Amino acid sequence: MSLKFKNAKRIEGLDSNVWIEFTKLAADPSVVNLGQGLPDISPPVYVKEELSKIAAIDSLNQYTRGFGHPSLVKALSCLYEKFYQNQINPNKEILVTVGAYGSLFNAIQGLIDEGDEVIVIVPFYDCYEPMVRMAGAIPVFIPLRSKLVDGKKWSSSDWTLDPQELASKFNSKTKAIILNTPHNPLGKVYTKEELQVIADLCIKYDTLCISDEVYEWLVYTGNKHFKIATFPGMWERTITIGSAGKTFSVTGWKLGWSIGPKHLIKHLQTVQQNTVYTCATPLQEALAQALWIDIKRMDDPECYFNSLPKELEVKRNRMVHLLESVGLKPIVPDGGYFIIADVSLLDTDLSDMKNSNEPYDYKFVKWMTKNKKLSAIPVSAFCNAETKLQFEKFVRFCFIKKDSTLDAAEEIIKAWSRQKF
Amino acid sequence: MSLKFKNAKRIEGLDSNVWIEFTKLAADPSVVNLGQGLPDISPPVYVKEELSKIAAIDSLNQYTRGFGHPSLVKALSCLYEKFYQNQINPNKEILVTVGAYGSLFNAIQGLIDEGDEVIVIVPFYDCYEPMVRMAGAIPVFIPLRSKLVDGKKWSSSDWTLDPQELASKFNSKTKAIILNTPHNPLGKVYTKEELQVIADLCIKYDTLCISDEVYEWLVYTGNKHFKIATFPGMWERTITIGSAGKTFSVTGWKLGWSIGPKHLIKHLQTVQQNTVYTCATPLQEALAQALWIDIKRMDDPECYFNSLPKELEVKRNRMVHLLESVGLKPIVPDGGYFIIADVSLLDTDLSDMKNSNEPYDYKFVKWMTKNKKLSAIPVSAFCNAETKLQFEKFVRFCFIKKDSTLDAAEEIIKAWSRQKF
Ligand SMILES: Cc1ncc(COP(=O)(O)O)c(C=O)c1O
Ligand SMILES: Cc1ncc(COP(=O)(O)O)c(C=O)c1O
Repeated sequence: MSLKFKNAKRIEGLDSNVWIEFTKLAADPSVVNLGQGLPDISPPVYVKEELSKIAAIDSLNQYTRGFGHPSLVKALSCLYEKFYQNQINPNKEILVTVGAYGSLFNAIQGLIDEGDEVIVIVPFYDCYEPMVRMAGAIPVFIPLRSKLVDGKKWSSSDWTLDPQELASKFNSKTKAIILNTPHNPLGKVYTKEELQVIADLCIKYDTLCISDEVYEWLVYTGNKHFKIATFPGMWERTITIGSAGKTFSVTGWKLGWSIGPKHLIKHLQTVQQNTVYTCATPLQEALAQALWIDIKRMDDPECYFNSLPKELEVKRNRMVHLLESVGLKPIVPDGGYFIIADVSLLDTDLSDMKNSNEPYDYKFVKWMTKNKKLSAIPVSAFCNAETKLQFEKFVRFCFIKKDSTLDAAEEIIKAWSRQKF
Repeated sequence: MSLKFKNAKRIEGLDSNVWIEFTKLAADPSVVNLGQGLPDISPPVYVKEELSKIAAIDSLNQYTRGFGHPSLVKALSCLYEKFYQNQINPNKEILVTVGAYGSLFNAIQGLIDEGDEVIVIVPFYDCYEPMVRMAGAIPVFIPLRSKLVDGKKWSSSDWTLDPQELASKFNSKTKAIILNTPHNPLGKVYTKEELQVIADLCIKYDTLCISDEVYEWLVYTGNKHFKIATFPGMWERTITIGSAGKTFSVTGWKLGWSIGPKHLIKHLQTVQQNTVYTCATPLQEALAQALWIDIKRMDDPECYFNSLPKELEVKRNRMVHLLESVGLKPIVPDGGYFIIADVSLLDTDLSDMKNSNEPYDYKFVKWMTKNKKLSAIPVSAFCNAETKLQFEKFVRFCFIKKDSTLDAAEEIIKAWSRQKF
């Protein structure tokens, strides 16, 4: 075949993708899908209604400002001003993107050069590695490691970075670190002290911080979400990323945003204007209207930013009990809507699985989807090649699901365990 | 400032953008905006209604297939099968993107390497040049040149490529040519013969063709749109790009698509999964439903693909007469919804305009927006640095506007000409 039909070098080897593979598997309607982070609870009624109303307005079906629809950046600046020391300039310090995904891409393409090093914490939301590689940069990995947990429940807070090991990853070539709190897939919510260690290193080595905070509202009792951008010396070097899909349980809207100082955001804007130019207007206006509703009642338990984590905490607890009841040892998440568990304890016979060179968790999830009609996501998908072995005993279940879905999962898991023991 | 806060090299010098500058200017509500290609006519009622209905359906607010919502790729394959010799595989030969813009970006990033040459025809939709540069490739420009037109109307078909000059641009480093028909800003609809010249060169030099056909439905009496991908030997080397925004007059939806052979589309898919991952679900479903309505009545004059060009042809004729009536010589477009005219004939005194090193048309449009409250887009914005002088006497007016907007423009232009003569 003609050489001209080959991929460009920048995307060499970046074509495999866990979502594509496992979403296809779970498409079978008889499968109970706890795989992809796809809410099957209803999004707030007013969010859907705003979109319905706005669709009827001619002008809101046309192009809007490329860097963010005016009413949306205004709403975002008003919302986030409550969490930062300073006012946030809606036009210069906020960029609306195609999902948080688009923000990650814009930040990496806008700021990171070929040959730069970027620190990535393992496990990681899977696109971090290929995005860094697509920019020609070198991902430098550091794993979260678990303390021994005898007797007590295993918690996402038991998984920490070793400060010395982290320091050893920084050097003069380090351009950025990608942080994710609350963390997908572990559910870890970084403490103030943990973030301070990272901030100190960022400042010492003059490093950028790309802080993926898409699950910022979803923290459970006893935990608090901190924004590293608010730490002394960090605003000027941090891009903080949020997502409408996660904020309002409308993952299909694919709107996200980056917040940061003008001198960084402007480079993300340049990427945006040469990649997609602008985001969908009706969705942006509907999101702005929905945000206003909740901005006005932030202290109210009805505010979705407060009510959703309350609703999810019940589901989290249910999942913990369910997994424990069949002899698994889940890692109790402090935030987000995923829970991971070591499935090697189930001692499943996977010998009839093809692709025997795949990691254990890939085989396990495929086996479970096929034989038990329950899907999940293998945690080694969130690892680089070298650390896959460290995490291949874990699979991730998503619990932003309505009760009937969780009931169905419970039935499957309980029947399975009766069969085994 | 820290070097780490600088832009990545790939976007060096790519931060200026005509839309951002001129859209800001035209934001003044007292300005009659014939600038950006932004329809102020109503989009079809069923298009808006589909979105309103779909917004209420929970599952259609969640993530869908990354390479295109299943019902949308199916509708697109059904639509385009009517124009290609072969069936089009909805999953492998179609990619849904964030606007045609996203398709252009994905094609360029997925297929074009650093150092490759890409032929770009001047004037060009302005993002082609920075997109090619962002990929580290070298744009090789060739201008459309106008034949002498004495006595008769000046038509976009008078603007042609010189076949010898075009051939001289191809060499072994030529990776691709970007074609745009119907053409923005000239309104040129390439003839079969003109496309054959391009196809022959693509085949001779084993070159890819990125064919931007976003205005494919908008061709006026006496003209016909041809798809270069249907020419012998071209399917295997062509990416054909379309846009929902242009097809249904909903530019704010930012949905587009690439159609081509699997061996090319798969590289665009790889870019997509590492940039935005997926497009907005409710918009994709609404677009699919709207397409079905018109697919079923393609031969009917009511079909939007037939009715919109009819409606626009009247507006085009009106613009031609208006511009002629004040002594201008417009270039009558055969397609698209823009008309350009040589404004140097107006002999406007621009001496009080700052930025005197700007091209004439930039100064003229700024002057006109400020003093006449009428906005347009300077045609040199569609040129590379070296050809700006060739086109700086032209400005582009957009005519996908309701009659009241065109009335207001007419009033301004007529009053202005009374003042002058
Ligand atoms: C940590 C993290 N970052 C980013 C994203 C992407 O968010 P969006 O759908 O807004 O692009 C996700 C989605 O699952 C995520 O879990
Ligand atoms: C020739 C051409 N290509 C592409 C585009 C971008 O289309 P979309 O809004 O679908 O990204 C435009 C928009 O004006 C255009 O004129």
